[in-house]
Amino acid sequence: VRVDELRTPALVVDGDAFTRNLRTMSAALPGPRLRPHVKAFKSTAIARELVAAGHRTLCGATLRELAGLAIIGIGDDLLLANESLDEDHLWEVAASGVRVTVAVDSPETIAVAAAAGVREVLVDVDVGMPRCGCRPTDAGRLAGEARAAGLEVRGVMGYEGHLMTTDPAAKAEQVAAAMEPLAVAHADVGGEVVSGGGTGTYAVNTWCTEIQAGSYLLMDSHYGATEVPFEQALHLVATVISVNRSGGWAVADAGLKALGMDHGDPTIDGARVWFCSDEHTTFSPLDGGPLPRVGDRVRIVPAHVDPTVAYHERFHVVSGDEVIDVWPIDLRGW
Amino acid sequence: VRVDELRTPALVVDGDAFTRNLRTMSAALPGPRLRPHVKAFKSTAIARELVAAGHRTLCGATLRELAGLAIIGIGDDLLLANESLDEDHLWEVAASGVRVTVAVDSPETIAVAAAAGVREVLVDVDVGMPRCGCRPTDAGRLAGEARAAGLEVRGVMGYEGHLMTTDPAAKAEQVAAAMEPLAVAHADVGGEVVSGGGTGTYAVNTWCTEIQAGSYLLMDSHYGATEVPFEQALHLVATVISVNRSGGWAVADAGLKALGMDHGDPTIDGARVWFCSDEHTTFSPLDGGPLPRVGDRVRIVPAHVDPTVAYHERFHVVSGDEVIDVWPIDLRGW
Repeated sequence: VRVDELRTPALVVDGDAFTRNLRTMSAALPGPRLRPHVKAFKSTAIARELVAAGHRTLCGATLRELAGLAIIGIGDDLLLANESLDEDHLWEVAASGVRVTVAVDSPETIAVAAAAGVREVLVDVDVGMPRCGCRPTDAGRLAGEARAAGLEVRGVMGYEGHLMTTDPAAKAEQVAAAMEPLAVAHADVGGEVVSGGGTGTYAVNTWCTEIQAGSYLLMDSHYGATEVPFEQALHLVATVISVNRSGGWAVADAGLKALGMDHGDPTIDGARVWFCSDEHTTFSPLDGGPLPRVGDRVRIVPAHVDPTVAYHERFHVVSGDEVIDVWPIDLRGW
Repeated sequence: VRVDELRTPALVVDGDAFTRNLRTMSAALPGPRLRPHVKAFKSTAIARELVAAGHRTLCGATLRELAGLAIIGIGDDLLLANESLDEDHLWEVAASGVRVTVAVDSPETIAVAAAAGVREVLVDVDVGMPRCGCRPTDAGRLAGEARAAGLEVRGVMGYEGHLMTTDPAAKAEQVAAAMEPLAVAHADVGGEVVSGGGTGTYAVNTWCTEIQAGSYLLMDSHYGATEVPFEQALHLVATVISVNRSGGWAVADAGLKALGMDHGDPTIDGARVWFCSDEHTTFSPLDGGPLPRVGDRVRIVPAHVDPTVAYHERFHVVSGDEVIDVWPIDLRGW
């Protein structure tokens, strides 16, 4: 099958760019130095590629992601890098037989983890982004509570998500400042693991023993500006279904139900995107270039990859114009 | 099952509000005066409710939506209110045995419709929103081309999507201005159908013979300001998974992968939403109200219903605190 024959809109992964991204990160952070984050791609097929590259420690943001890996048996050290109060589904994952660790940041999440049969936890610490994580000064106490509940405490986790796309010149210093309280918490908590980081900070976060990166594989256009050595490997192929010559615009059959829109409109090379509606993107050529023709294919680059992927059922892996593989996006939903 | 027992994030439909919305519109636009648009809810279960209320003429924006209705045999006059170049899948729908009409706005879309075995078309006319639709003055010529290709031309379609949320005082006048060229095109094209309109304009669009409304059933918060007589019937139930007392914020387990974000952040009654990340919404109580507790449930109102629905697998229909039905969202994807 050729790319031009795909039913549109279709998510397309450049297999060569993907492989280069995979290898670049594996060289920088081999084996368990990387804890790949499956939330970025939600696909067991990509998780298998990571395991094949030596990364057997994976993490996810949802129980569906963890369960999908655990039940098939992909990886041998899985982390729910998130809090959960869902005892039933946590139990399902914990009972899978795979080593499963869960983030906790409160007495309630500790109690649920223990009740669900989880054996190991990380204490999640607030390192400056207003989301989950306990105060650094509370981490030691929570670790004690977890141990008292029969849980093994492997260490700490702290995600500096607010620093992913910060100015490269200031990033190392800001990451250092964010990691300082995590180091203090780690000293109080004990254990061997300090988990955190992401695609935007992996090169400067030398405090974490493992980096939770995932976006680097498909790459997000907003990381492009921050000088990470990864290539855009994902785009959306759409068909031009209407051309308005007098108005000077064309319409592609992919809209805001096929694109994560929280970072704004997508981009099209050589064109200005006017707006997206449910199933359409209206655009016009830049610099008086020629309008496309009805039936032409167009490549749309999503503004935010992660929520784009979550709308789709599969990736089409391509080499040039040929579709060489199909990877199901089988870890979406909850 | 009680709402509090649902796995979160969970899409919840207030069954009573839904029924009131359904009845209000059916009273205003009975039977074929309404051509309900399934793009808003992507569910055969809701399509069946509409058919039971006397609306046997339905429309959709994607071939997946049309195929889902046609293959099961829901409705007996289905319109693809969109252009398609996908001959194979158009053929699938046309061959279903159900009456299928397709919008066309170019020689190319006419040729594909004819080749796919479609029998009837509407000529889609640009009425002021830069998207699909031919120039009004081209409509008659395209109708002739369609007839020459063996297609029955049922009339015209023109969607005034740019006027859905305009100032109510100016709306009637603006819709009239948009419908004027459609009426001219209709005179050139012939046929009995003038299809257009939506939830925001159904009350003032007296030019269309049928109104393509769908959002009124679940309702979008941005329509609320425009004085339509429909109630918000959909929200997202999430669980509070983390509370930061010193910072004054709480975190719910539903984020931008569970919410259409093109209209901005969602809202929570009595709270200020700080931001959404992939699987989290950070918020704080208004007016010094009490922080929730870890494990509490919270109701999140999406800023835009249609792309929110497209992330989910099912609606939970509730009456008070009881889940009384589950409606699959089985028409999503492409």
